Formats: sequence, C-alpha cells, structure tokens
Amino acid sequence: MQREALHHVPHSNWAYLYDKDTFHLRVRTGKGNVNQVFALTGDKYDWEHYHEEHRMHKIASDQVFDYWETAVKPENKRFSYAFRMQAGDETLWMTETGFFTELPAPPDGYYERPYIHEIDLFKAPDWAKSAVFYQIMPDRFANGDPGNDPVNVAAWGDTPTAESFFGGDLQGIIDHLDYLARLGITAIYLTPIFEAPSNHKYDTTDYRKVDPGFGNVELLKKLVTTAHAKGIRVVLDAVFNHISAQSPQFQSVIEHGEHSEYAGWFHIHNFPVKVTDGKPNYDAFGFFADMPKLNTVNPEARKYLLDTAGYWLKEVGIDGWRLDVANEIDHTFWRDFRKLVKDINPEAFIIGEVWSDSMRWLNGDQFDSVMNYPLASRLIEYLNNGDMDAGRFGEQLGNLLMRYPQQANEVLFNLLASHDTPRILTQLGGDPRKLKLAAAFLFTFTGTPCIFYGDEIGLEGEGDPDCRKCMIWEEERQNRELFESYQSLIRLRKAFPALQTGRFRILAANPQERAFVYERVDEDAHFVISLNPSEQPATLPLPLKGHFQDALNGEKLIPADGQAVLDLAPYSYRILIKTDET
Amino acid sequence: MQREALHHVPHSNWAYLYDKDTFHLRVRTGKGNVNQVFALTGDKYDWEHYHEEHRMHKIASDQVFDYWETAVKPENKRFSYAFRMQAGDETLWMTETGFFTELPAPPDGYYERPYIHEIDLFKAPDWAKSAVFYQIMPDRFANGDPGNDPVNVAAWGDTPTAESFFGGDLQGIIDHLDYLARLGITAIYLTPIFEAPSNHKYDTTDYRKVDPGFGNVELLKKLVTTAHAKGIRVVLDAVFNHISAQSPQFQSVIEHGEHSEYAGWFHIHNFPVKVTDGKPNYDAFGFFADMPKLNTVNPEARKYLLDTAGYWLKEVGIDGWRLDVANEIDHTFWRDFRKLVKDINPEAFIIGEVWSDSMRWLNGDQFDSVMNYPLASRLIEYLNNGDMDAGRFGEQLGNLLMRYPQQANEVLFNLLASHDTPRILTQLGGDPRKLKLAAAFLFTFTGTPCIFYGDEIGLEGEGDPDCRKCMIWEEERQNRELFESYQSLIRLRKAFPALQTGRFRILAANPQERAFVYERVDEDAHFVISLNPSEQPATLPLPLKGHFQDALNGEKLIPADGQAVLDLAPYSYRILIKTDET
Repeated sequence: MQREALHHVPHSNWAYLYDKDTFHLRVRTGKGNVNQVFALTGDKYDWEHYHEEHRMHKIASDQVFDYWETAVKPENKRFSYAFRMQAGDETLWMTETGFFTELPAPPDGYYERPYIHEIDLFKAPDWAKSAVFYQIMPDRFANGDPGNDPVNVAAWGDTPTAESFFGGDLQGIIDHLDYLARLGITAIYLTPIFEAPSNHKYDTTDYRKVDPGFGNVELLKKLVTTAHAKGIRVVLDAVFNHISAQSPQFQSVIEHGEHSEYAGWFHIHNFPVKVTDGKPNYDAFGFFADMPKLNTVNPEARKYLLDTAGYWLKEVGIDGWRLDVANEIDHTFWRDFRKLVKDINPEAFIIGEVWSDSMRWLNGDQFDSVMNYPLASRLIEYLNNGDMDAGRFGEQLGNLLMRYPQQANEVLFNLLASHDTPRILTQLGGDPRKLKLAAAFLFTFTGTPCIFYGDEIGLEGEGDPDCRKCMIWEEERQNRELFESYQSLIRLRKAFPALQTGRFRILAANPQERAFVYERVDEDAHFVISLNPSEQPATLPLPLKGHFQDALNGEKLIPADGQAVLDLAPYSYRILIKTDET
Repeated sequence: MQREALHHVPHSNWAYLYDKDTFHLRVRTGKGNVNQVFALTGDKYDWEHYHEEHRMHKIASDQVFDYWETAVKPENKRFSYAFRMQAGDETLWMTETGFFTELPAPPDGYYERPYIHEIDLFKAPDWAKSAVFYQIMPDRFANGDPGNDPVNVAAWGDTPTAESFFGGDLQGIIDHLDYLARLGITAIYLTPIFEAPSNHKYDTTDYRKVDPGFGNVELLKKLVTTAHAKGIRVVLDAVFNHISAQSPQFQSVIEHGEHSEYAGWFHIHNFPVKVTDGKPNYDAFGFFADMPKLNTVNPEARKYLLDTAGYWLKEVGIDGWRLDVANEIDHTFWRDFRKLVKDINPEAFIIGEVWSDSMRWLNGDQFDSVMNYPLASRLIEYLNNGDMDAGRFGEQLGNLLMRYPQQANEVLFNLLASHDTPRILTQLGGDPRKLKLAAAFLFTFTGTPCIFYGDEIGLEGEGDPDCRKCMIWEEERQNRELFESYQSLIRLRKAFPALQTGRFRILAANPQERAFVYERVDEDAHFVISLNPSEQPATLPLPLKGHFQDALNGEKLIPADGQAVLDLAPYSYRILIKTDET
C-alpha cells in the first residue's frame, strides 16, 4: 500500500462537524491503490460499549489520490478513531501515531474528537444554499435618476475607461428588480456604494454615507425594502482593507503627520507620508498610493469599521456583507466582525474575497463563504478545450471539493466572472454555446451561484475596465436565447434542492475525452447532467437504472437493461431527472 | 518523483509566522526521493521587482517522508509562493493548483500569504522557553501545617488509595521552595487547590476558595510572593470542563430540576437528573456522575468561569493556567479565555491538557502550550528497547516536531510522567540508569521540561492512585545520585539557550541500533548529545569538526581529522560542548 499517499488531519477539512449531530471523516489514499477503507470509532472512556466500524465511500479522485468519506453520529458527542485500509490481502491501520499492520489497541494514539460543541460548528445561513446571486456595479447597471449623475457622466454604453462615470444608481437597480425577479434572482451583491471618488468606489471616503451619485440612505432603504418584497436579498461590499487617500482620516495624516489623531489608523513606515518611484512609504492595497491600507488592529480604526458593519445591518436591514481583499485583514478582526454581524442578524451572509485556499477563514469563526475563483478557472480551461480534458476536470473538481467541509462547499460563492476578470463570454472565446454549458454547470453544481450583471444577456469585455461595460437594456441587443437558458436553469435549480445540496458524483470523466457526466442526488430527486464541450457529437453509454426524462423539455429517456445511451449534440448539455414511472 | 508524498498546506504548521518579520515554509517529500527543494516567493502585486528563490533545508525525516524548511522575510509583509523540487534530472513545481513540469507563470494559482499581521502570530511568553517546571499535587508534596489536616488523614507515606488524604498543603510547598530552588526549578504547576471533596480536587465545589485543607487565599498569596522572590513562577490548574456534583450549582439542579437557575450550566438530557446502570443522564467527565460537565456556552456559566480565571490572576498574581481536559471545551470559550488572561497579564502562560494532535489550539488564538504526552510515550518506548530502535525514535521525533510551528515546539510542555500516568521510573522498569537517560533527553530537547514531584529522587508507582504517593523527604531514602543528575542537567540547560531553543538536528539514529546522537546549536553554543540505552557499550564515530569537551565533567575530546570516537558505557549519556580551543 502506498503509505506516502495516506493522509488525514484531525480538526480540519478532513474531520469536521457537518451539523450538530453529524461528524464527517475523510481520508486520502493513493489513486486506485486501496480497495476499501473503514473508520473505527469509539468512546475513549468506554470503548467496549461504544465502538463502531464505518465503511467509507470513495467520493472523489484527483490526479494522484482517492478520497473517502463517512458520516459518524457519536452517541456521547465524542469519539476517538482510526482508519483501516484494505488493498487485496494487505491490511493497514492508520492512527495519529502512524501505521500498523495489526490493530493497535484502542484508544491510545488514535485520532480524537474530544467533544462536539455546536458553537464550534461551521454554519452558514440556510437561505444561502438555495440563493441565486446577481452581482451589480451600480454605476454600470442602470441610470434611474439622471438628476444625481456626476458632472462628467459619459453616454450610456460608451466604451468604459478607468475614469468613466455612466450615471448608474440605486434607483436604476430598483427600476429593474422585476427584471431580476423574472430571471430568477434571489439575492443581489452590490459592489461598493459608499462615498468614494472613483467609479468603482473601492476607495471609500465616507463609510457612513451612500455615494451621492448613487442616491442616499433613504433610497437604499427603499431598494432593500422593495427587493425584500420581491424575495430578493441585498448584500453590500465592505471595503475594510483600505480607504481612500482622500478620506478625512488620511488627509489628516498627510497634514499632521505623526501628530494626526489618525496616524495609528495606517501602516506608515515614516513621516511625512510620500510616494517615491511609485512606491508609497506606507502600506497600501497593492502599491496603489491612493488606497492606503487601514490598520485594523488599531482600536479606534477597528471600532469605526465594526460599527460601520453594524450600522448598515441595523439601519437598512441588509442581508450580508461581501468583504473586499478579506485575506489581507487580520483574523482577529474577522472574528470580532462575525460576532458583531451575527449578533445583529444571525441570517446575515458573510462572503470573503479570497482567491486562494480559504480553509483558514472557513472554520466557523470568520466567513460563511468565499468567492470561488478556483472553480471558475478550471471550468473555463475545461470548456476551452485547453490542457484540461474531462478526466482532468473531474480530478480538479474532486480536489476542490475536498478542500473544505461539505457545508462550506454548499454555500461557496460560485461565480464565472466578476468585475475583476474578463467577461465570461469573452474568456470563452465569445462562443455563447460554451457559455450555456458554463451556466448549465454553474446551476447544477454544489455551491451558491452568482451571475455578474449582463453575463446572462451576452455582455462581452476584456479585463478592467472593459469588463465593466454598461448593462444593455434594449431587448433586441440582448442575447435573449442566452437569457432564457439562464432563466430555465435557475428555475430548475430553485425547484430542486438536489441541485443545490444533493450528493455530487462523477459518472463519466475520461482522459482524452471531452464529455463530462455527473449526478446530483438527494432523497427527493436524482439528476444526471451531461456536458459536451466539443465540436463533435457524443454518444454516451450510461449505466442508469430506472426511467429518466429531460428535466428542461420533458423528453423521455428509457434505459434498456439499465444501459442508457445519451446523444449529445456538439457544445450541448442535457439535464436528466429520474421519474417514478416503471 | 513521488507525487503522492509531496505535501504543503497554506496557513498551517506548514506555513506560519515565526516572529513578526519571519515566516517559515515547510514542505514534505518522499523519503530519500528528492535531492533539493526551493521555495520561490514573490509579491503578487509586483512580481518582477519582488521575487526570490530560497533553498530549503531538510530538517527532519520519519518513516516515509523528508521534511524541508526555510525562513522568508518578505519585504512588503506579503508573498505568494511555489515549491521547486529536484530529483536527479527531474524538476517539478508544486503550487496550490497542482504539479507542473515547467515553471507555472507567477503568481496565479500559487500558494499565498496575503499579509502578515503580528496580532495573528502564535506567541508564548518568552520566559516559558527557559523555564524548568515542577508539578506538585499539594496533598502529597509536604504537610506544612497539621492544623488544617482533614479528619481522616493517613500517615505520611502510607500506600495511597483513591480516597486517601495525607495532609499536604500550601505551607508544605512554601517550606520546600528552597528545595525546588536548589534543584533548579523556575516554575511550579499545582494540581487543583480550590475547594473540592476529593484528594485530587479535580471536582471543584467552589472555584473562588482555596481548599481549607490546603490553606486560604492569604497563604496562597504568601506562596506566590515567596516563590517569586526565589525566581519561581506559579501556575494553577483550571478545571473548567466539569464541576463537582456536590457543588451548590449542581445540587440546585438536583433539587429544582429544570427550574434551577443553574439548569443551563450543564448538559442535561432530561429531568430529574439520575444515574442508570452507571451512566448519568447528563454529560460528565467520562462517565463519572460526580463530575458533571459544565456548559461553557451558557452565558452565566461562561462568565463565572472566565471571571474565576481573571480573579486569581489579579488577586494573587499567578503566572498562568494549566487547563484540565481542555480539549473537551469549545474553542470560543478558549478564545475569550486567552483574551481575558492576556489582557490581565500578557506574560501569563496557558497550557492545555490535550493528549493528541493539538494544532487546532496552537494557532495563536487559544493556548500557548499543551502537555506533550506523545513525546513521553515515544521516549519511553525507545528507552525500554521495545520495537523502537534509534532509527525509529528519530523518525518519531521528526514527525512530532513537524506537527507544530517551531515557536510552539519551543514551549511544548514536555513531561515524562504526571498524576495521570504511572511514575516514569516505574515505566522504565525501575531502572534509574534509564531514568537518567530520560532526564538527559528531557533537558536537552526542544520544549519546556516539567518534572512530576518526586521523580527526581526516584519515587516509583503504578497508575493512579499508586503514582500519587507522598513525597519522600528523608534524604537517606531519596536517590541522591538521581537528584544530582537532575540538578546538573537543569543547571546546564539554564546556562545555555542553545539547549532550550537551539536548532535540533539528528546526527546518528540508525535502524537496528540503540545509540542516538543529536545536536543543539545556536549562535553561542554547539552541543552534541549521545544516549546509549543498551546493556552494551557503544563506540560511535562522529564527524565532529573542532574541539569538544564533556559539558558536565569538563573532560576533553579532541577529534582527530574531524572524526571523533565517542565511547559510551552501557545505559549512559554524554553531553559534549564545542570549545573555542584549537
């Protein structure tokens, strides 16, 4: 047995409380190297009376490894455990102490889950599991009130530059809530709306004031109230990593140096503050001198930011926060932040902007979710027929799903693109067929989907500023077929919890092949989803037991002898659902 | 290259802030499978100007793996990174995204350390690195005041039972502080001293009252003041997982059931509380009905316990807390606990009782240290000439050292035995030669050593209650040679920071052999320590450059041609120190 491949870490994504009664254990083995894995569990205080053996299920594989999982419901809220691996005639036990060829006497040296406390459980709001999000840049979505346009406003639809203003505002969003409701959206995430000099407003000057170009606090309340009435939640963007250099706080530091009452709010290397060869003598977002980094450890700065988070939750009743550059702020800040936010609204959803492995923030004490860019990059590479064939795509998904606890996966913020990437259609070579495949995957995969405004009607664009074009509202200029695909997929996802939180399992994902087939299953529904991102049609034999029909158009598929044949046109997908008919 | 063996996890014991400027990266490779490893680091916001390559050093090995480490001091407090592995002609890069045979374009998909915040640093008090601890059970250490003896007190030195009281008390400890000072002790850890019916006092009835059998708060203050004057710190035992069934709180629940104001302080399955077939209908420590588990999530219970922790720190000026059954209490409690304790005394030392992997508690937000039972069990197995030869012992040490960040290793609470295990001398077959070897290792290894009272003079005993015998004070009944060995070893450890925090490296640890040789090195001193737990003498060729002398007796050892030969008598050790003479 490949001992190098065997892996488990207690108190991690390998051993976590899934809900208050259920514990998940995962273990890794060499790919194809082990036939069966068992988890041996027991109560260390009375092993004799309380021990069990759990067969583990292979739930994922990647290039190098197989991953196994089982659920444990310990009677006394505590258990120690070991793993038993079988490979042919060979048996190996693995404990915290190492490997054994004979059963090591329990429980000494076993892995341990000392006592299960619900308060330590990672738990995101339930509504996030079934939500369909829509990301809006207010300046670019809709101009509902020309009266508040900036003086230098450009014509709607002009090519954006880094400095363009287009006059979009909160009234524009209110005016189009019905559009979003028709699309099926249940939550919107707005990029920053607080007073800031730029068009993107990631350079705040006043965290307690709606930018006058977008409206005011009363209009924000109206937006939230109106949206709520239509079943749409509202999440705002908290830019707490940095502030605008034009903010009164930083201006005070420019003027008074170390004598400013705000000197401690920043990370300043020496006074006076200055920029030399493009590099500021203070920490900033990247090297952007106009966005000085805030010192979130400074008690006054910390209080100001936390109070800000609480203020908007209480004053306006927003449903959560998306946290900009969240990974560059200290963990103690985020712990305080979570406590404050959840004390005000336990159902608030907290989404961190972290592009890389985020386990450190998903232990239940900080975020509910993170922006899932790694998923997008793999999906795009697969659909673009790059180096990533179906086999490799399946492996990459397995690897990503094993990064986090299952309940974190269920609310990961799955996006295809954002204001920080080129438009998804552009990344897919401008081919709407590929985008439909991407959408089919997005709405049938584990995690909370989010649409970047306009992707659903075919907006294109390279990276910033091109990806931040104005929304197109003339239907004749929209890709309505694409819109309707999104609409159908969203309707289907919302109708079936199996598509939200059902078990994900790959049915076909072979090296050198393009077609990718997977199922989503819960107690109420069983879906089989097939993607064929190829110029060639695909004929897929599928070992399906029972009767299936196309979940979108109702066409029936009757497997013969448990063997269905699925014909897929080039660049098409099928979503099948099992029917009760026999 | 064995890809199965390659391992790294960001934000973990594989990637941690060592001090406010220095970051440690570790990576794992297959044993003997890789020749060189490099860490490629850079600032993602300006890779061109800020990137470096760091050669990593092989710092440990175990049965299956080699472990590599390097230190990084990022100029801008942030960096992304990848690893490059060389095995013969083969080169492999590893990033968060997977493996690559050619350099993947930085920094997309690289591992990431977004921004280094000192507040997130795991940092224990500096004094703990150089401390030598001594664990005392007050009832068994010394009876300084027969006036406060329990009525049923047994004669000093009688065989202890689970119910014996021997009259030891705080005055007894005060009376023997000079003994401890002579031994070289710099900190004592007292098992519980608060009011409780049992002799061990792990079943508290009043957390705010010194047990009358031990003394009172004034005497405790005297103990702390007197100890401090002799350079000895005092750490108390916080038993917050459970309380005595005889406590007023639990008695109220027995009497009033769910109507008791304390009903929420416990985990009660149903009322009235009762015990059926030995199993209580409430959560307890193990299944001990007389130790009901406290509900540390209940706000009143939580406040009471936290206030207790603060009270003794402020009222008496103790130097830290040892936390009983710490792993069965929720993490949010310990975070609040740490904040409270460190706000009162930043130098307080927090030691959790956790017997298994403790990384979850050693991220800087909970404990400073944990009781290092895993080290003791491996050392004992090695010294007893069990299945563990020198090679395997070295591997086990490597594995243990890689579990935690280096600064946690430096203050891990290294004990050979405690009130919860058989006496160390008994575990070593009653052979004082083996115990001297164990002590030599304890005082020359990384981590904070702790002596269980009486081990230093040869107390023997099987598990509880036999290991909790009375201290022997008549010198003629003490093993004075053992005492002097301890004394010399402690003196040496305290004189040389290299023995506390110097780099640990194994020089000889071969399969099938008994002798184990390692070095401890810092800028000021270079030690070579050899252990020979065998009935056979050992002659060890050692590639030592320079002149060495025996650090304990001054005997000189002149290596010839950089090749020293070290003769070790059966069951002996040598501690050599490099001298400047040439």
